Amino acid sequence: MHFASDNSGPVHPEVLTALAEANQGYQMAYGADDLMNEVRDRIRGIFEAPGAAVYLVATGTAANSLALATLSQPWETIFCSPVAHIHEDECNAPEFYTGAKLTLVPGGDKMQPDALRRTIAAEETRGVHGPQRGPVSITQVTERGSVYSLAELQALCGVAKAFGLPVHMDGARFTNALVALNCSPAEMTWKAGLDAVSFGGTKNGLMGVEAVIFFDESKAWEFELRRKRGAHLFSKHRYLSAQMAAYLRDDLWLRSARQANANCARLADGLRAAGAQFLHEPQANIIFASFPRSLHKRLHAAGAVYHLWGDPLDGPDEDEMLACRLVCDWSTPTEEVDRFLALL
Amino acid sequence: MHFASDNSGPVHPEVLTALAEANQGYQMAYGADDLMNEVRDRIRGIFEAPGAAVYLVATGTAANSLALATLSQPWETIFCSPVAHIHEDECNAPEFYTGAKLTLVPGGDKMQPDALRRTIAAEETRGVHGPQRGPVSITQVTERGSVYSLAELQALCGVAKAFGLPVHMDGARFTNALVALNCSPAEMTWKAGLDAVSFGGTKNGLMGVEAVIFFDESKAWEFELRRKRGAHLFSKHRYLSAQMAAYLRDDLWLRSARQANANCARLADGLRAAGAQFLHEPQANIIFASFPRSLHKRLHAAGAVYHLWGDPLDGPDEDEMLACRLVCDWSTPTEEVDRFLALL
Amino acid sequence: MHFASDNSGPVHPEVLTALAEANQGYQMAYGADDLMNEVRDRIRGIFEAPGAAVYLVATGTAANSLALATLSQPWETIFCSPVAHIHEDECNAPEFYTGAKLTLVPGGDKMQPDALRRTIAAEETRGVHGPQRGPVSITQVTERGSVYSLAELQALCGVAKAFGLPVHMDGARFTNALVALNCSPAEMTWKAGLDAVSFGGTKNGLMGVEAVIFFDESKAWEFELRRKRGAHLFSKHRYLSAQMAAYLRDDLWLRSARQANANCARLADGLRAAGAQFLHEPQANIIFASFPRSLHKRLHAAGAVYHLWGDPLDGPDEDEMLACRLVCDWSTPTEEVDRFLALL
Amino acid sequence: MHFASDNSGPVHPEVLTALAEANQGYQMAYGADDLMNEVRDRIRGIFEAPGAAVYLVATGTAANSLALATLSQPWETIFCSPVAHIHEDECNAPEFYTGAKLTLVPGGDKMQPDALRRTIAAEETRGVHGPQRGPVSITQVTERGSVYSLAELQALCGVAKAFGLPVHMDGARFTNALVALNCSPAEMTWKAGLDAVSFGGTKNGLMGVEAVIFFDESKAWEFELRRKRGAHLFSKHRYLSAQMAAYLRDDLWLRSARQANANCARLADGLRAAGAQFLHEPQANIIFASFPRSLHKRLHAAGAVYHLWGDPLDGPDEDEMLACRLVCDWSTPTEEVDRFLALL
Repeated sequence: MHFASDNSGPVHPEVLTALAEANQGYQMAYGADDLMNEVRDRIRGIFEAPGAAVYLVATGTAANSLALATLSQPWETIFCSPVAHIHEDECNAPEFYTGAKLTLVPGGDKMQPDALRRTIAAEETRGVHGPQRGPVSITQVTERGSVYSLAELQALCGVAKAFGLPVHMDGARFTNALVALNCSPAEMTWKAGLDAVSFGGTKNGLMGVEAVIFFDESKAWEFELRRKRGAHLFSKHRYLSAQMAAYLRDDLWLRSARQANANCARLADGLRAAGAQFLHEPQANIIFASFPRSLHKRLHAAGAVYHLWGDPLDGPDEDEMLACRLVCDWSTPTEEVDRFLALL
Repeated sequence: MHFASDNSGPVHPEVLTALAEANQGYQMAYGADDLMNEVRDRIRGIFEAPGAAVYLVATGTAANSLALATLSQPWETIFCSPVAHIHEDECNAPEFYTGAKLTLVPGGDKMQPDALRRTIAAEETRGVHGPQRGPVSITQVTERGSVYSLAELQALCGVAKAFGLPVHMDGARFTNALVALNCSPAEMTWKAGLDAVSFGGTKNGLMGVEAVIFFDESKAWEFELRRKRGAHLFSKHRYLSAQMAAYLRDDLWLRSARQANANCARLADGLRAAGAQFLHEPQANIIFASFPRSLHKRLHAAGAVYHLWGDPLDGPDEDEMLACRLVCDWSTPTEEVDRFLALL
Repeated sequence: MHFASDNSGPVHPEVLTALAEANQGYQMAYGADDLMNEVRDRIRGIFEAPGAAVYLVATGTAANSLALATLSQPWETIFCSPVAHIHEDECNAPEFYTGAKLTLVPGGDKMQPDALRRTIAAEETRGVHGPQRGPVSITQVTERGSVYSLAELQALCGVAKAFGLPVHMDGARFTNALVALNCSPAEMTWKAGLDAVSFGGTKNGLMGVEAVIFFDESKAWEFELRRKRGAHLFSKHRYLSAQMAAYLRDDLWLRSARQANANCARLADGLRAAGAQFLHEPQANIIFASFPRSLHKRLHAAGAVYHLWGDPLDGPDEDEMLACRLVCDWSTPTEEVDRFLALL
Repeated sequence: MHFASDNSGPVHPEVLTALAEANQGYQMAYGADDLMNEVRDRIRGIFEAPGAAVYLVATGTAANSLALATLSQPWETIFCSPVAHIHEDECNAPEFYTGAKLTLVPGGDKMQPDALRRTIAAEETRGVHGPQRGPVSITQVTERGSVYSLAELQALCGVAKAFGLPVHMDGARFTNALVALNCSPAEMTWKAGLDAVSFGGTKNGLMGVEAVIFFDESKAWEFELRRKRGAHLFSKHRYLSAQMAAYLRDDLWLRSARQANANCARLADGLRAAGAQFLHEPQANIIFASFPRSLHKRLHAAGAVYHLWGDPLDGPDEDEMLACRLVCDWSTPTEEVDRFLALL
């Protein structure tokens, strides 16, 4: 009953098999391996973007920081949600790589077009004194488990485009959002107006691989230099390629995300039936729910693992509603979900 | 007959097995995995350094840049060889991470104590105007395949210590040097005066793992923050730990390096017998040799793969001596060495 | 009738005289001039801080950025008001110099201890993932013309100290606050708990000089290196020293600030009598007031110069209340204030 | 008899007069002052460059660092002399502002076209691994008092242009070189192939002003943002403008440099007649000469002030030749030169 994080589950067996298959003889280092050609072709095909620049790195923070550095200048500001991973959870890595400031768009987890428009507009009145407007970064799935609809993405991109600003997507859980929306990758990205995507694999069954995709190939060489300068270019790159190739073959990426989302929905349904309240309506593979301390204690005693969101497990009031975060990944066994629900 | 690089060979099967074994159930993310405890204990034991701080990253450039950033200040200068990897092959990553300047110690591949002393001394006369003296970085095995003796390491560290400066070792090929010297890790590091080591695994059979070791634990927390800020902290860290654990179990690290060095020596002996000249006396797993263009052509035609070092294969003079670099790794088949030598 | 900024007035004649007096013969460059000794002694005396480290730079942004860089680490966050000059008006200079993130303490212009405590506390739960807590920066006089009382400063410093964090004061208008509070420099700084101050002179009659004062001398050498590395060390430093020396001799700094504050109070009284509303209660030399568009038009037509704060002068509604900012400096003629008031 | 530095002399009286004249009433801040229009027009006229972008900063290090940052990328390398001020005397400020590496062109003080070509060429073989080629920076007058001829400048720029690289001139002593060559500013800059110039004023009689000139105006806005972000934009900018305007009016810049060079030549002639040896043939306002210790002692005893270049004044051998640096500025009295020479 492990629902703490989609970072703590194992790697999908098909990925391990692909690593073993890649482990034959010599291969060119530093991204010149044959498998990277397959990866590039598959991503271009899947995204209907034949001219896209495609690169692999090993961490989501690297993907975000390098993509944003390539889209911005050090005297600019990057617009994001107050709970964006790039703001809260990357220990100033985006600032380190970009030199830019992060400007938080007021509101909750999900960025609203009007708030974005006002925030961007407010950055225009200081000439050389204030930071200049830079890229907008959208998190899909959001940090609180919500999924922007295509219309919402289009609206946000529309605001950015009206100011001439590029848009980046932190897609650490890209595929969980994609299968929730049941749309195409092109629809969720460049057709909505996005310029660059951190296309996550690690949280969805890989060992540690994220693709960075630029729909405008003119940024390609700069990105390559930034990746090397950031120490994120792998010598034995074939093992990144092999993971991503396996991910994209035979729909592993889609199967894994669907499985995670389905178990999450099953969990949410059970919680709802048991009277839990949802801080955010679960749409993908993350749940933010609150229920009484007494129930949390029972679940923990039975071995359930997940994060409380603010309050301690121990406390005087057994009826106090405590918020928690529950996450499913591709490997969450449905039986464990059911065991958990049985405890409710 | 592939002698191009120790970055292009496969991963050792024992490492793949370890990855598969690690791929069971849930594990704490971000370095809190159980295997990391094993890694830390093994490295502390092997280095006879019970208080050492031990961290894993995935690239050698990350190991070097983060270690040096932790040892230096942005107004300092880092002393290194003119052919050091940190200077020539990391696209300004050390400057990016440290903010410091790299000062080249005149001379060849191998740093000489007198030249180091003069270079450090020359940085003292400008007060606030010049950069301040910072760490010394030594590459072991050097970029040209040489190995510093213990006495040489002690002498270099002695110079640094006389100025109160810390010393870092870029040990991308640490184990190749260690088995060449037939000494203990402690002797080749802290007993000689070193403060921090990039302990490489990738070139010696791992997929992509380097340990950074600080013998003074007081730098530990700063390193952790720098690693995260550099986007080099892996969420599914257990797969780094698993590689390094396998590397250190059952002497795999030593076996692999001995195998690489032995094949390199066999190759060198054959080349010597055939009249090749050595630009640097091979001591570990890299050879810099020169022999006539006609012989290079014959070898290439037969499928040998390696880097020419400066001149093109095609040229008018068949007798011209062309320099080349030949590298063996753990996976180089002895039969391939012999096939190569048979062509001489 | 020029009330646009205390950056657009002239230099005090006593300062020009001091520059002419300093312009004799040779002087050691780079801060080793005799006048700097006088400046250091005067500031240590005035602040009752015999061990303080004292440095001069030419811009307020340099003073703030260098002071904060010396107090922080690049993986930390600096706590400040949402309207702090370091956040809004320095084009990412603080981020450039510190590498840190600026975290805005919710609320208005003036930082509140409870909000500061909550904001600092909220930065503690992420371990290595979130930025670490760093210095608190307080602006005195605030950007909206308010002055923190000694009790308020003590309360803010108390919160910071409870978390072990250093406190910096952006004192671009330090003396305007000091004379408003009628306290000693020591009371307004280290006795309240501050660690470093940007002690402004430019807005109070100098050509371009700000002192940076560290009450803990251990930061001195680092600051000197950061100043040089930031290209802010003047070769002909005596001309910075001469300005600051003149400023501190014969109470010029106090006389100038009292004059500015008095004219500002006179202006505020007149505006209040005429029915203007104050967005912030004026306490020093800046007024934020709103009154009808028709009155703004009349004032502008008569030659008054000041900044509207948000809305355009032209607009359909003559009765609409438009906010504006009015600033006095040492050079504002009282007759001009009276001419302005006569137009009301 | 003060020949230590052109940083330790006073400001020209015409400059002080101009500062006093500028000190009337209100002026727009941050470079929008009327005097800046005059400065821009004068510089464009003098350089025959009607489209040039012209900016003022207060230190030479700021001029160099900001100009180079505008011409380079952080993954590039800047080519310069091993004794360039940007390398030896700016405490990593160029690295801080540019993020780039400085690559030293082997040879002496004066860069040679062949050495530059070889050095640039050597930076091409590593793809993404090595830093990329960036701007060339030439110091005119050199750090050792030499002046590049127009043909030499053209040759160096020709090499840079053949590789598509921009060229910057550190012209801290621009006018001393200009009057030595007796050519036009256009000939010594853009007609020779230069892209940007740090046009120094401080060492030639100003209080602290350097202009940065870009002959390609497309860099203008980026420079403005970098200047502000570097904390080098002055609020009371009119006092920078006033100095530079005075400098360019009535040929003060040329008169001052001619005076300095003439006194330097007089000094050199006397030293030559007395048997001194020259390390570099003096061409502008700096002399590097060596003569016996006994003579140095006599000069010092008589009150002469200048820097010995390597050896201490005290030493056993009275006949040992000790190198020294002697500098004249606009203010050096000819009688002092003659007093010095009389001591020989």
